[in-house]
Amino acid sequence: MNEEIDPEFIAKLTDFLGFDNERIRHLIEKNYLARNWRKYEYLLRFDKEISHIERGTVLYQRGSSFEMITGFPKIRRAMVLDPTIKKHFLGLEKVVVEEKMNGYNVRIATTKEDILAITRSGYVCPYTTQKAKEKLNPKFFDDFPELVLYAEMVGPDNPYISKDIYNVESVEFYIFDIREKNSGKSLSISKKQKILEKYGFFQVKFFGEIPLETAPEEIGKIVRRLGEKEREGVVIKDPEMILSPLKYTSSQSNCSDLRHAFKFYNEAGRDYMLSRIVREGFQTVEWKENEDELKKRCMQLGESILKPLRESIRSVKEGQRLYEKSRIRVRDLKTVGDFQDYLNRLGIDAVFEEPQAVGEEYLITIRKLNKSTSDKTQAIWQGELW
Amino acid sequence: MNEEIDPEFIAKLTDFLGFDNERIRHLIEKNYLARNWRKYEYLLRFDKEISHIERGTVLYQRGSSFEMITGFPKIRRAMVLDPTIKKHFLGLEKVVVEEKMNGYNVRIATTKEDILAITRSGYVCPYTTQKAKEKLNPKFFDDFPELVLYAEMVGPDNPYISKDIYNVESVEFYIFDIREKNSGKSLSISKKQKILEKYGFFQVKFFGEIPLETAPEEIGKIVRRLGEKEREGVVIKDPEMILSPLKYTSSQSNCSDLRHAFKFYNEAGRDYMLSRIVREGFQTVEWKENEDELKKRCMQLGESILKPLRESIRSVKEGQRLYEKSRIRVRDLKTVGDFQDYLNRLGIDAVFEEPQAVGEEYLITIRKLNKSTSDKTQAIWQGELW
Repeated sequence: MNEEIDPEFIAKLTDFLGFDNERIRHLIEKNYLARNWRKYEYLLRFDKEISHIERGTVLYQRGSSFEMITGFPKIRRAMVLDPTIKKHFLGLEKVVVEEKMNGYNVRIATTKEDILAITRSGYVCPYTTQKAKEKLNPKFFDDFPELVLYAEMVGPDNPYISKDIYNVESVEFYIFDIREKNSGKSLSISKKQKILEKYGFFQVKFFGEIPLETAPEEIGKIVRRLGEKEREGVVIKDPEMILSPLKYTSSQSNCSDLRHAFKFYNEAGRDYMLSRIVREGFQTVEWKENEDELKKRCMQLGESILKPLRESIRSVKEGQRLYEKSRIRVRDLKTVGDFQDYLNRLGIDAVFEEPQAVGEEYLITIRKLNKSTSDKTQAIWQGELW
Repeated sequence: MNEEIDPEFIAKLTDFLGFDNERIRHLIEKNYLARNWRKYEYLLRFDKEISHIERGTVLYQRGSSFEMITGFPKIRRAMVLDPTIKKHFLGLEKVVVEEKMNGYNVRIATTKEDILAITRSGYVCPYTTQKAKEKLNPKFFDDFPELVLYAEMVGPDNPYISKDIYNVESVEFYIFDIREKNSGKSLSISKKQKILEKYGFFQVKFFGEIPLETAPEEIGKIVRRLGEKEREGVVIKDPEMILSPLKYTSSQSNCSDLRHAFKFYNEAGRDYMLSRIVREGFQTVEWKENEDELKKRCMQLGESILKPLRESIRSVKEGQRLYEKSRIRVRDLKTVGDFQDYLNRLGIDAVFEEPQAVGEEYLITIRKLNKSTSDKTQAIWQGELW
């Protein structure tokens, strides 16, 4: 990143970020402020949270100054609905409840002349970018170059989180927030909805405005209904989007996370596992479940942990290596190469199978290898001690 | 520890341990080699593993030299019985199988003139010491001043691990190894058994010598039978005690550990939790369990996690603080004061209830407070975010 050490560039960044010279140099040297690759080199990303600038925030030169696309603000979790919601949104009469979908988080916006899909970490994913260009009405970006769509990419042709529960054939972008560049300020819920409708974008399901007083109970019902359909949960928002949102998830979502984590038990984070389990404990107490309901929850928890664990241990015993399977769908095979190159740069060990033609498009199966769990399990079957 | 910096003392230690002067000074300064308190000040303990000297090893001056009581060697775990046992004990015809009891590990030996019970970390526990003096035939220590008993203290009047499963009225010491001072060398199984019988000591259950070839299968059966009685598992040993032993535990023991860990979910180690869960996965695959057996295991796992978690979360909701309850039984109330003082020195937050006279003795209930889980759970019930 030699040209950033260029004093003129540093001086401009200093003006824009309000950090002093020394600090900017330090961020660049430590790679906390780093460039994307190849044709996206112009896009700088924060690899770390720095004084209220979220990790994953990106910025680029525009004329003589910069433009910034702020990162995904971390949405904090209510472990219990009551009193957490009432306390967090104190002073509001109503809160908005929207569905929290289980997909891949991307920000979509125009930078210099491109429409780009930017990941949570601030990378430009070439596959997601291509899908965004195909799926999203480009007029929005012409009309509102100063706005950024915050979306979940969901559906089976998602190389990150592949889910069949949303009735999506390939992939779609469900928008949950619109924010302004630079300030990161969110549009109010009503303004967001108006714009999304106008341009024909999909938006996350809206469960309405709910009085704060009855919100814990009503949200409990909504989350139970979502859970029955294996859906993840809700995000609870200030209608004006001034107070920060909260999230709350279904038992089925906790169990689904656990199934994935225990399949790859040596890769998954211990805190990740524990937090999903503890959520189950608080939910059963808050919802005053009886012994039958508890028994059902115990069984679901036990199965979510032990079945995938057994499956992986058994596969390795039979000589297999463990992997995560996903799929992409492209019009142009060039996208496959770009995506493969991108995963390589990120250090992800993935095997791409031969493209299969389907109509005008190609389906490509991807296997991401789970080396750590495979190796550990194999060593144990060979008699290694714990 | 000023007098240790005394050059003459350092010189003697240097001779005994074979470490150079500088290293001894460093160990003392870092408190890796530290003194016990009060009347046991003469007993130095290794607070860290140092070049093959196990953590918890203690030593004391004896005439012009030192005597050393080596620590508990870490017994490694077989995650699967086959091929681990055959590989580890390669070259032996038979292995000895003994019960692994769930109690508190102590070493018992005479040092200067005392019989002392020394914990895994190298402290002298005044309660355990008193019990050892009451329970163990002192003639052994007169006849064999050079030997050390490695024991499990089990039974309900155990302030560390209180279990009712061993048919012990108060506490007993079950000996599993006899080792020589200084070298740490174990007596062979047959020699150990002969001595323990002669002095009327309890010893851990002996399941016999088993041919290496059939050991995985036979040990599987033994562990299943032990599990049915909620007992922990086995230690597999070289009859000559030259190769290091291995351990293997029952599903019930894994679940019992999990029940304890999830009761105090914010105190317990994440790796501790995960390892118990992963053992269940390997056991069900190695033992080729069918779908019914798997279902039962899932239920037991789920209940071992969620029930204690629910219990703790509910207790805190109802305004209680979480604690672990245990009990001691003493002849002389002075032992209570000494033990309380000892726990204080270790930084353990424990409340002692009023002694209750029972025959010639007193029972004292102890509550060890679990501040971390209590505080975390309480904060969540007050609306704190995760």
